[in-house]
Amino acid sequence: MATAGDHVIPLFISQCRECRFCKSPKTNQCDKGWVNTGRHNAMAPLESRLTCRGKKVLQFCGTSTFSEYTVVNQMAVAKIDPAAPLDKVCLIGCGICTGYGAAVNTAKVEPDSTCAVFGLGAVGLAAVMGCKAAGAKMIIAVDINPEKSEKAKDHSNPISQVMFDGGVDFSLECVGKAAVMRSALESCVKGWGVSVIVGLNVMEDISARPLMLIAGRTWKGSAFGGFKGKDGVAKMVEAYMDKKLKVDEFITHNMTLDQVNDAIELMKHGKCIRTVLNVSPK
Amino acid sequence: MATAGDHVIPLFISQCRECRFCKSPKTNQCDKGWVNTGRHNAMAPLESRLTCRGKKVLQFCGTSTFSEYTVVNQMAVAKIDPAAPLDKVCLIGCGICTGYGAAVNTAKVEPDSTCAVFGLGAVGLAAVMGCKAAGAKMIIAVDINPEKSEKAKDHSNPISQVMFDGGVDFSLECVGKAAVMRSALESCVKGWGVSVIVGLNVMEDISARPLMLIAGRTWKGSAFGGFKGKDGVAKMVEAYMDKKLKVDEFITHNMTLDQVNDAIELMKHGKCIRTVLNVSPK
Ligand SMILES: [Zn+2]
Ligand SMILES: [Zn+2]
Repeated sequence: MATAGDHVIPLFISQCRECRFCKSPKTNQCDKGWVNTGRHNAMAPLESRLTCRGKKVLQFCGTSTFSEYTVVNQMAVAKIDPAAPLDKVCLIGCGICTGYGAAVNTAKVEPDSTCAVFGLGAVGLAAVMGCKAAGAKMIIAVDINPEKSEKAKDHSNPISQVMFDGGVDFSLECVGKAAVMRSALESCVKGWGVSVIVGLNVMEDISARPLMLIAGRTWKGSAFGGFKGKDGVAKMVEAYMDKKLKVDEFITHNMTLDQVNDAIELMKHGKCIRTVLNVSPK
Repeated sequence: MATAGDHVIPLFISQCRECRFCKSPKTNQCDKGWVNTGRHNAMAPLESRLTCRGKKVLQFCGTSTFSEYTVVNQMAVAKIDPAAPLDKVCLIGCGICTGYGAAVNTAKVEPDSTCAVFGLGAVGLAAVMGCKAAGAKMIIAVDINPEKSEKAKDHSNPISQVMFDGGVDFSLECVGKAAVMRSALESCVKGWGVSVIVGLNVMEDISARPLMLIAGRTWKGSAFGGFKGKDGVAKMVEAYMDKKLKVDEFITHNMTLDQVNDAIELMKHGKCIRTVLNVSPK
């Protein structure tokens, strides 16, 4: 348990260590709280303890990290190495674990396999890293933004090379669009192809032909890359400190907290990978 | 390889033993032929060798088993124990392997797990058998036909008992309707629930909320229960001969081949589990 003075990274999926989900090695879906499911609980109670200019403020994702100070239940913070640079490893609290873990923990990418990653934001690039770490022999990176493709070009090859062979072994959707989720499933090989939905979309249903699954494909999804929050974040920070995990390369911009709206505009227009907001100017 | 005089069961998914799918332990999706995919190949070539009253007849499912004689590629027949009663073990060539294997091979039902089986035709009943054989502690059998529920009552309990606990560990859709496939997925517990589509439907798309998968559920499908045809059928016939697999209980009617249309009417109206068509009256 984290105590006063510890360096921590806030988690949008808690790890209470007590519920049947925390006790199972199969999942990170702690029953105590994931605010995106619409459940308000220990992590982010409706009777929020945060106020701004006298008005109650609810907590985004249970973490409220666009702020100098926040109040988070201890079950939703990961204690990390105090030597780790906070303005870098903060990224491990979301996109990097989400993409990397989707490949390693959820898809369980295998050595010498072929992979396709749809969407090259931070999550998709982290998924490419995860596929590479797992020993994939070919990783096809798909994005409609040519600037983003540049970032991933070390790992990419024409998609047709693999598609002629019946499809990839593993595909990861890191966009959050139902049409892309369908394409990602269809891009998998029959028999053993595994497609993982990583991008979040609460507005659209996914759809597919049943035969896609009946012919042996598996459709899965991943939240926070399947990492149990406390354990996974601490481990990933350690991997970064040991220079086994890239993080700095994801940071394209450094801004200050009062520029948060500008940072979000950059993201909306695909002009950044990740912007780190510092409390005071760097 | 089967030779003249062997007793065989025809397969609608071949096992050529040479393609990369046959060589992989992960799948039964032999690349040489599954006619339902629209592919006409070695198993059931368009230049069919069957005729009826001088007219060319194409082969249904590559097997053409509503006939005294048929022509099937050797890669699409399973050699079985010649002592096995053909008017019983013929059922192992389709529904029994499909349902049983979907539970055991595809869902990989675990001991002490909770299962839900949607649809109690032969496939669904075989799925219930598979769940039981795998050690499930509770099996919920769902059908809108009260006569069919009777067949499964030894294994069923009110669905609410399990649903209060967040859903079942494994669900199997044995109906072939997209709406039921969606319900089966939603009836699984978050974190580790696995839902398997067993019923075939080529007319409708399946759909679901992405969050169903993102919260840790897995959506799979199964054809012929994941059994490699030659190996699986021989093994299941052996299990029947050793009294480890029920088959006789599935046969509610015996008719002759010229009554095939009556037999199909019985099936359409849910009045049978399986009808065996004998060439001559029993
Ligand atoms: Zn928990
Ligand atoms: Zn084959």
